[in-house]
Amino acid sequence: MISLQSYVQGRWVAGTGDPKTLHDPATEAVLGDVRPGGIDFAGVLAHARAVGGPALRALTFPQRGELLKALSAKIHEHRDELLEIATRNGGNTRGDGKFDLDGCTGTLAYYAQLASTLPPARHLVDGDGTQLGRTPRFWGQHVHTSRPGVAVHINAFNFPAWGMGEKMACALLAGVPVVEKAGTPSALLAHRLAQIVVDSKILPEGAFQFLAGSVSGLLDLTTAMDTVAFTGSAVTGALIRGNKNMVARNVRVTLEADSINSAVLGPDVESGSDTLEQFLANVTTDMTQKAGQKCTAVRRIFVPQAMLAEVAEALVERLRAVRVGNPADGDVRMGPVASAEQLKDVRAGMQKLQAVSDTVLGGPQAIADKGYFVTPTLLRAKDASAPVLHELEVFGPCATLVAYGGSVEEAIDLVNRGGGGLVASAYSDDRAFVESLVLGIAPWHGRIWLGSEKTHGQALGPGAVLPASIHGGPGRAGGGEELGGLRGLMPYLQRTAIQGDRAVVDRAFGKGQGG
Amino acid sequence: MISLQSYVQGRWVAGTGDPKTLHDPATEAVLGDVRPGGIDFAGVLAHARAVGGPALRALTFPQRGELLKALSAKIHEHRDELLEIATRNGGNTRGDGKFDLDGCTGTLAYYAQLASTLPPARHLVDGDGTQLGRTPRFWGQHVHTSRPGVAVHINAFNFPAWGMGEKMACALLAGVPVVEKAGTPSALLAHRLAQIVVDSKILPEGAFQFLAGSVSGLLDLTTAMDTVAFTGSAVTGALIRGNKNMVARNVRVTLEADSINSAVLGPDVESGSDTLEQFLANVTTDMTQKAGQKCTAVRRIFVPQAMLAEVAEALVERLRAVRVGNPADGDVRMGPVASAEQLKDVRAGMQKLQAVSDTVLGGPQAIADKGYFVTPTLLRAKDASAPVLHELEVFGPCATLVAYGGSVEEAIDLVNRGGGGLVASAYSDDRAFVESLVLGIAPWHGRIWLGSEKTHGQALGPGAVLPASIHGGPGRAGGGEELGGLRGLMPYLQRTAIQGDRAVVDRAFGKGQGG
Repeated sequence: MISLQSYVQGRWVAGTGDPKTLHDPATEAVLGDVRPGGIDFAGVLAHARAVGGPALRALTFPQRGELLKALSAKIHEHRDELLEIATRNGGNTRGDGKFDLDGCTGTLAYYAQLASTLPPARHLVDGDGTQLGRTPRFWGQHVHTSRPGVAVHINAFNFPAWGMGEKMACALLAGVPVVEKAGTPSALLAHRLAQIVVDSKILPEGAFQFLAGSVSGLLDLTTAMDTVAFTGSAVTGALIRGNKNMVARNVRVTLEADSINSAVLGPDVESGSDTLEQFLANVTTDMTQKAGQKCTAVRRIFVPQAMLAEVAEALVERLRAVRVGNPADGDVRMGPVASAEQLKDVRAGMQKLQAVSDTVLGGPQAIADKGYFVTPTLLRAKDASAPVLHELEVFGPCATLVAYGGSVEEAIDLVNRGGGGLVASAYSDDRAFVESLVLGIAPWHGRIWLGSEKTHGQALGPGAVLPASIHGGPGRAGGGEELGGLRGLMPYLQRTAIQGDRAVVDRAFGKGQGG
Repeated sequence: MISLQSYVQGRWVAGTGDPKTLHDPATEAVLGDVRPGGIDFAGVLAHARAVGGPALRALTFPQRGELLKALSAKIHEHRDELLEIATRNGGNTRGDGKFDLDGCTGTLAYYAQLASTLPPARHLVDGDGTQLGRTPRFWGQHVHTSRPGVAVHINAFNFPAWGMGEKMACALLAGVPVVEKAGTPSALLAHRLAQIVVDSKILPEGAFQFLAGSVSGLLDLTTAMDTVAFTGSAVTGALIRGNKNMVARNVRVTLEADSINSAVLGPDVESGSDTLEQFLANVTTDMTQKAGQKCTAVRRIFVPQAMLAEVAEALVERLRAVRVGNPADGDVRMGPVASAEQLKDVRAGMQKLQAVSDTVLGGPQAIADKGYFVTPTLLRAKDASAPVLHELEVFGPCATLVAYGGSVEEAIDLVNRGGGGLVASAYSDDRAFVESLVLGIAPWHGRIWLGSEKTHGQALGPGAVLPASIHGGPGRAGGGEELGGLRGLMPYLQRTAIQGDRAVVDRAFGKGQGG
């Protein structure tokens, strides 16, 4: 039993106010609590601005990369301990926990490696220089510099390690101190990670602060150089984007919210093919990994009418084979959802989908006396055009089969009804189909994953967020963008056009510069 | 006397409701009016989405560039007629009018030229492809595709031609249909431009619509794929960014708002030098061109204490030489401000600045019986730290001299008190001073203009917005970004990571692709 503390202004501080209880979602055992109050938000921001920011900005990009490398290694040292917490407080199987933790350390290591390839400077050169006047003497060069503000990261409960790690990696490498707010249901793991980060003394003081409880009053104190990055529900996302202080001061915001992700099986894919096998394997993984609590998990499965029965049967077989239970038991392949509240939301959402679907497997009914368990649930839409199919994210092990005629136009139309998504996957060896589909759905998506014969066994599935590719999507998905190599640093950097004598501009800020 | 019409859904439509009168700001003669109502906003958006968008997206980037080239040439054909309107309805001298109009046609031509260098495709390749898996087979490539939405452009009154042209160039090249809202006081010129665009039949139907009156109800109807770009006051900017519908749907917004732009004279600059001469000439131009109604015009002039008296004297001499009057008179070098409302605002703002400054030249007092004239006004701050100096944009021919000790640290601190700006200029031949200053102020600025001995006679001053360099700034300046070559298309494109078999991804979407 622990009451989680926050790490602010160089010390651990106990929370105050009404406690929120933390549970083991498999047993409902009480593990600790989080109290929302007691934090001097103005002090947190001032500390980051006055102490952490200057220390980070004094380092070059490669030097900041060294910090990330050390952090990655330090967190990895604690892997077993952290995996145990992920199981206990997050309902994670060992596989789920690794996905989260190794995602965290892997992303930190990726950015460390990327940083090592950058010049030893405190700014990034953006593109080539350009002649601006009639003669080459007057010259323009764009550069990116670190914003002297704070990166406020409001993390989701589903990936306490990866979510914090990927946001931190980008902000710290950009030279901006972070304030990390934990998602409450899984705050125990985030808190232990924060302890490891703090105890390691790898980061300069003020570069890392951790909030176990609420963050809302802090947003009213943000100013022009701050960036708020949020992962969570669209409802909370809109409150953040619409925050009056942030609107008035043009505080930067990047949101990652709801996404009704799609998988499309191409009309060319035949029984027994490697392409079909990948499709089935990926859908099964997406539905059951982390008990379906991945922002990238598939929710809509588009299958040509002719293949629908076969696909449904194959998925049922695979989903039935997934043993659900307390992830502390090593044979269990899927744990519970993270909290009682999530369980309630998932059940209510399933019922809404059931109103327009047949239930092929599972459903919202309780399957255990204790714990927030949901059975893998596969639905089959009665009518592909029912809006709820395309608009409701049920954040659990639940997805809906939707039959389509097999034309690329119909697939594009159906996929895009999601109103903006993080990822869509397509499985086909018909290049014309794939190219048309990609161009048709790209404007609505941050990422498109293409499965074909040749990718079999070569790739992590579409649910995996890789640091070299952007993560985020337009519209319903929040309109944000994270990761994608250096693209992920942009929320924390300011782009500036430098104009002047070519000799001056190019020497100090051009591609040839080194410091 | 004309009541301006809007061009919507393929026809010219009269406005309804209370008219806003358009004046000649030099004589106060009534020229026409604008009526806010009578527009079917849902119909406008639907027309753009259903008719204009598909037609533009069917074209490749170079083909869209051809449209821009033709538009530029067509508008240029009407140059004399448009210059006359700019004088009559905008209070523009011939030089002011050229700056606006040639800026419009030049920006269209710049983007036409840029487009001609792009592959004949409907998407843009973003960066190099990357290996994503353990083997090179699984590959990632980022691309940009056209958003199937509408570009809603809310233009400012000060640059009716350039403002509309630069926003249009980027959106149309990106494949997104535009709805152009004119700034009211100078709507006569915007309206005539719209007539020329429409009559030319260069653009596909639905790609261009024009609103003479209000746009506010339209924002409530925007959806996920739309982009709203606004240039104007911070107060209106916040209303747009905070619009509930836009927040809920994550509609993209790019704002260009207030900016208390700086010019910094370096401590090394001596009397009689070419660098000093540029500084004086640029400040004078910025203060008087367009009667100071440029979002990029200098408002704060930082001068080393030792040079203050000399600079003040030289500027007074130059400003006194600027003949103010009705710009229809060819000898006049500065016209009136655009409207009675602007005159009132400018006078009130000058009085606020006078409370913390000495008046070196000019002031808010009336200088004519008729017309919205203001005299060039140079103030000298009593105390460099008075907040109003750094926070109030007086949108007229007014700037304040602020003495500083000559250290780069002090200059950085003072400049950045502006809270985020479009442009800062610095004049120095001391490279160490320049480099430190640039790195210190870059995070707070979209653009930095460097004057030195070698740039003398080579460059347009810092007030000129060039299409190859970004335009926009953080914080108070709105947090937006426009222009900057292809960077200016980004508000209208979606970036998507494509992941899959290298052979598939690279062939269709990689750098080598051509269609």
